[in-house]
Amino acid sequence: MIFTSDNWAGVHPKIFAAMEAANEGLQGAYGADATSTKAEALFDEIFERKVKVFFVTTGGAANGLALSALVPPFGAVLCHEVAHVQMDEAGLPEMYTGGAKLLTMAGAGGKVTPDAISEVMRVYGTPMVHHVQPRALSLTQATEYGTVYSVDEIGALAEAARGHGLKVHMDGARFSNGVASLGCKPADMTWRAGIDVLSFGATKNGAMAAEAVVFFDETLAHDFAWRQKRAGHLWSKARFLAAQWVGFLQDGLWLELAGVANAQARKLADGLKALPSVTIEQDVDINELFVAMDDGLAAHLRAAGGEFYDWVYPGDLWQGRLRRLVTSYATSDAEIAEFIAAARGF
Amino acid sequence: MIFTSDNWAGVHPKIFAAMEAANEGLQGAYGADATSTKAEALFDEIFERKVKVFFVTTGGAANGLALSALVPPFGAVLCHEVAHVQMDEAGLPEMYTGGAKLLTMAGAGGKVTPDAISEVMRVYGTPMVHHVQPRALSLTQATEYGTVYSVDEIGALAEAARGHGLKVHMDGARFSNGVASLGCKPADMTWRAGIDVLSFGATKNGAMAAEAVVFFDETLAHDFAWRQKRAGHLWSKARFLAAQWVGFLQDGLWLELAGVANAQARKLADGLKALPSVTIEQDVDINELFVAMDDGLAAHLRAAGGEFYDWVYPGDLWQGRLRRLVTSYATSDAEIAEFIAAARGF
Amino acid sequence: MIFTSDNWAGVHPKIFAAMEAANEGLQGAYGADATSTKAEALFDEIFERKVKVFFVTTGGAANGLALSALVPPFGAVLCHEVAHVQMDEAGLPEMYTGGAKLLTMAGAGGKVTPDAISEVMRVYGTPMVHHVQPRALSLTQATEYGTVYSVDEIGALAEAARGHGLKVHMDGARFSNGVASLGCKPADMTWRAGIDVLSFGATKNGAMAAEAVVFFDETLAHDFAWRQKRAGHLWSKARFLAAQWVGFLQDGLWLELAGVANAQARKLADGLKALPSVTIEQDVDINELFVAMDDGLAAHLRAAGGEFYDWVYPGDLWQGRLRRLVTSYATSDAEIAEFIAAARGF
Amino acid sequence: MIFTSDNWAGVHPKIFAAMEAANEGLQGAYGADATSTKAEALFDEIFERKVKVFFVTTGGAANGLALSALVPPFGAVLCHEVAHVQMDEAGLPEMYTGGAKLLTMAGAGGKVTPDAISEVMRVYGTPMVHHVQPRALSLTQATEYGTVYSVDEIGALAEAARGHGLKVHMDGARFSNGVASLGCKPADMTWRAGIDVLSFGATKNGAMAAEAVVFFDETLAHDFAWRQKRAGHLWSKARFLAAQWVGFLQDGLWLELAGVANAQARKLADGLKALPSVTIEQDVDINELFVAMDDGLAAHLRAAGGEFYDWVYPGDLWQGRLRRLVTSYATSDAEIAEFIAAARGF
Repeated sequence: MIFTSDNWAGVHPKIFAAMEAANEGLQGAYGADATSTKAEALFDEIFERKVKVFFVTTGGAANGLALSALVPPFGAVLCHEVAHVQMDEAGLPEMYTGGAKLLTMAGAGGKVTPDAISEVMRVYGTPMVHHVQPRALSLTQATEYGTVYSVDEIGALAEAARGHGLKVHMDGARFSNGVASLGCKPADMTWRAGIDVLSFGATKNGAMAAEAVVFFDETLAHDFAWRQKRAGHLWSKARFLAAQWVGFLQDGLWLELAGVANAQARKLADGLKALPSVTIEQDVDINELFVAMDDGLAAHLRAAGGEFYDWVYPGDLWQGRLRRLVTSYATSDAEIAEFIAAARGF
Repeated sequence: MIFTSDNWAGVHPKIFAAMEAANEGLQGAYGADATSTKAEALFDEIFERKVKVFFVTTGGAANGLALSALVPPFGAVLCHEVAHVQMDEAGLPEMYTGGAKLLTMAGAGGKVTPDAISEVMRVYGTPMVHHVQPRALSLTQATEYGTVYSVDEIGALAEAARGHGLKVHMDGARFSNGVASLGCKPADMTWRAGIDVLSFGATKNGAMAAEAVVFFDETLAHDFAWRQKRAGHLWSKARFLAAQWVGFLQDGLWLELAGVANAQARKLADGLKALPSVTIEQDVDINELFVAMDDGLAAHLRAAGGEFYDWVYPGDLWQGRLRRLVTSYATSDAEIAEFIAAARGF
Repeated sequence: MIFTSDNWAGVHPKIFAAMEAANEGLQGAYGADATSTKAEALFDEIFERKVKVFFVTTGGAANGLALSALVPPFGAVLCHEVAHVQMDEAGLPEMYTGGAKLLTMAGAGGKVTPDAISEVMRVYGTPMVHHVQPRALSLTQATEYGTVYSVDEIGALAEAARGHGLKVHMDGARFSNGVASLGCKPADMTWRAGIDVLSFGATKNGAMAAEAVVFFDETLAHDFAWRQKRAGHLWSKARFLAAQWVGFLQDGLWLELAGVANAQARKLADGLKALPSVTIEQDVDINELFVAMDDGLAAHLRAAGGEFYDWVYPGDLWQGRLRRLVTSYATSDAEIAEFIAAARGF
Repeated sequence: MIFTSDNWAGVHPKIFAAMEAANEGLQGAYGADATSTKAEALFDEIFERKVKVFFVTTGGAANGLALSALVPPFGAVLCHEVAHVQMDEAGLPEMYTGGAKLLTMAGAGGKVTPDAISEVMRVYGTPMVHHVQPRALSLTQATEYGTVYSVDEIGALAEAARGHGLKVHMDGARFSNGVASLGCKPADMTWRAGIDVLSFGATKNGAMAAEAVVFFDETLAHDFAWRQKRAGHLWSKARFLAAQWVGFLQDGLWLELAGVANAQARKLADGLKALPSVTIEQDVDINELFVAMDDGLAAHLRAAGGEFYDWVYPGDLWQGRLRRLVTSYATSDAEIAEFIAAARGF
């Protein structure tokens, strides 16, 4: 009954198989290989256009590199106050951008709003020498609270951003779950809605360590290769990074796995929400539940073998009682049933 | 009727005279001169103890260098959301610290509270690898809103900070005004209250360009000289920086000038507060007034020759109607009277 | 007949098997898994002492992170003028250290000497404020020219470094080949000879992407975890990084593969050195040959299917005629024979 | 008999007077004042064209800011191995550029050559992802060895640089002495010869702390204001920085003072060169002498009251016997005569 994180799951066998398939003889290093070419073509196909894609191994690297392509060292990035770039990367965006600032916004359900953008820009948006210069908005889709922006919401935010001269980055560590949840086309949720650069994560959805930085506006990528290399994120045996993407993207595996993960969260939520002792705090749009419960129940579930995090977040309306439960493609119905049963038995 | 900023005033004649007195023959560069030694001794005297002091020319440099001595690149500094280091230095602390993050707190009157510190530390204080590591608190005394922390308030904040393992920095761009307002000893407002490092500003109070970084805990200064040099803030003809401090500190000029500036603000406030058309928003503890007035009155005052800033700040309770008025040692009674008369005449 | 680089080879089956073995169920993220524990124990065993080890995926990351633990932003690292950190990482050490400087030394065969260290320290070693402060020496073993320092040479360099107050880093991208060449114990070539931190590379010797930062002096690693995280080099599914090391280190695979690669280079050298048209420029201590040959022969070999780099290096005694040939664990006798035959046939 | 450095001299009275003249009432901060406007116009006049100029207080800041406008963090700057940016700024260019690398060149008399540039570009000039990308050449005029490039030499170097896609920066800490030495127009020695950005220093030639970054290609300055602010080098009372330039540039004071300093060095050289016990090592083009003498003579001169530096430099052909003597506008004939007499008396 492990609901700690979707990164506790291993590598999906089909992705492993794709890696093994790439392990054929000597091949060009640093991306000059057939697997890399194939993976790149899959991105073009999935996004229904030519994109410029770079492969790295962590979401932090993907986000930091993407943002460093958008803002100068004296620049700033607008993001939600619980965004991963703000809270969970130990200052990585600051390192990669050479010290740019993150300007944070509150917002229900982990979502930012056009109004919040306007307010930050009212305070920081003047092109005066004393201020950092906001140049980008970073959205997280799906959000840190397991909610999903609608395509229209993304469009409205991107439009607002653009009106303020901001480029738009999407942190898609759980991009698959977001697309699966909305049932939309990847293109609709990204470039057609105004996204300039996407961090697309596969690691949390069955890959080993595979994140992609996808530029829809290629001109933004003009110096990216040096940024990637200089951060130590250019693999020599790049084919094994690309291979994960081949396994992940071909035959729709990525949406299949995300669909499973989302469905399992839904089942878990359905089972728990009937209990008076718990409150599901956020919409369960993807594979994450934020559940308020007393320490007694939490201890009981842990004693029964349940694993999950107590969730620390700004504000703390639940006074330490919020817990995060994450499902993955590997979550079984049995685990869910057992967990719900344990909760009922309290 | 210029109330734009105290940095619009020139150099006080006594400070100029001290600079001229230092212009005697050839002398050692980079601080190896008699004036530097004299200035250092004055700091020891004023703070009633041996301190380690470094001279720079801007408040930004003083703050950035001080903070870079307190936090690692993966560290964080807690500060008020309107702190100068956050809003007005174009990302300087991030540059100097190598990318450390500022974690901001709201708080009435530009003041932070022990509770706000606790809340940030609840969210970011775990020594886990994913978070930036808070290592310092930066207080502004007097605050950006012209208010002043009491000695007890500073003590309580420093104690709270220390309890969380944070060093304490004081941004004293208007330190003189703060001391003059409280009528306390500099030592009481700093090291006796738990301050580790002070940015002491003279520029806004009659110097040409003179800011000092004062370490009460000398061990924190062990690599400061390289940080200062590397940032381009080590003058070769250092005696002229030190001379400003000699002129400023000796014979109590600094408190005399701050007293004048504070008193003029008080007079201005007293004259304005009687008017129904204006609201004095903050306590007028030093030489700054934050005054809410309609655009009509603001335009009228400007037409009459008044100069001041519309004040942009997070939240904007006054919907664009807040104005900042700053007095200085050079503000005349006549200017104040003229301004009040103009306001009355609206 | 591919002699472009050892990173053109794929992943050794035993290493792949170890990765697959790690793909078992849900396991703790970020290193809290059994495979990581096992890999760490193997390092202790191989180095005959307790070490502190961190796993990353590129040699650049390993070097940059290691150096950032040794020098401050105003510090400097001494290294050879052809060191990988100097020439081939697009400024990564500067990014990771926050701007520390590399001070380069010439030296035959890619090796630095105690005299060269003394000369740099004569110029830069004064602890004066105007200079960057040298705090580390970085040695490359085996060197960029395929030569190997003897254990005594390393000891003498480390002693010289320590006499100047420098910590000692070893860039061991081809550490295996060096150990195999010397036939010594890893401990003798590292901590017993005075090395403080080692970048140990497996990628060029059969792994997918596996480099380890090994601290012999654990106190130097006190903030390394944040540095690693902040650079985007902490894998969530860390077990797959560790698994590569398990496959690599257990049962002596690493030395077996390095032995093969070295032997193949020796065979290639033996076959070529008899030809009047080529000159082997450096000692062939490991799996690299530096061969001077005219453009005609180079073109002939390439037309016959040979692949290798023209080698650009400071000085260029061979006026563009130096070529680098690299063998790997996957280089076959047939390839070597074919290449030599082609050369003979010119 | 102080020949330690030209920065031991004080502020020339005319420059002091200009500062005092600027101390008139309240004036706009951050450069919005009449003195700043006047100083800017003087630059246009002296360079016979519209230039974009920024005022800072140290040569390090001027150089670092200028270079940060020319190269990205993954970029590189070519310079002489004894350039101030390389040896004497404690890593400032690296801090300001976000970690760009300096690639150094040897060269007689502190001068670089087109051949040396070609050699660095042969090694580092490929636009491949593994290398730092050279984007600028930094020349020092006059050089660190007190020699002066001819206008033709500068033209040839700038042309070579441009052929490699490099912008050209001139470090003119002793620009005045160089112009005075050549007797040329400032425009001929800079933009007409191909210089893009100039660090023009006044501090060593009679100012208090006044260095200017002069952009001949204004497009390069598009984000300079933020860089300057973010480095803590934007003065609020900017008029006092500009005033130094007014005093320095108007009525040709700068060339008059440089002429004196140069002439005094010439006299000193003429007096010393007759002595068999000393060797003047470099051309004495400006106000610096590099003099080889035994320790006995050096000690004798110091005992007699002479002050000067032993000079540490790469290579050390003189085995510790090289000494640097610097004159300034304040050096008297009597001092020179006394020093020569003391040398003769040994």
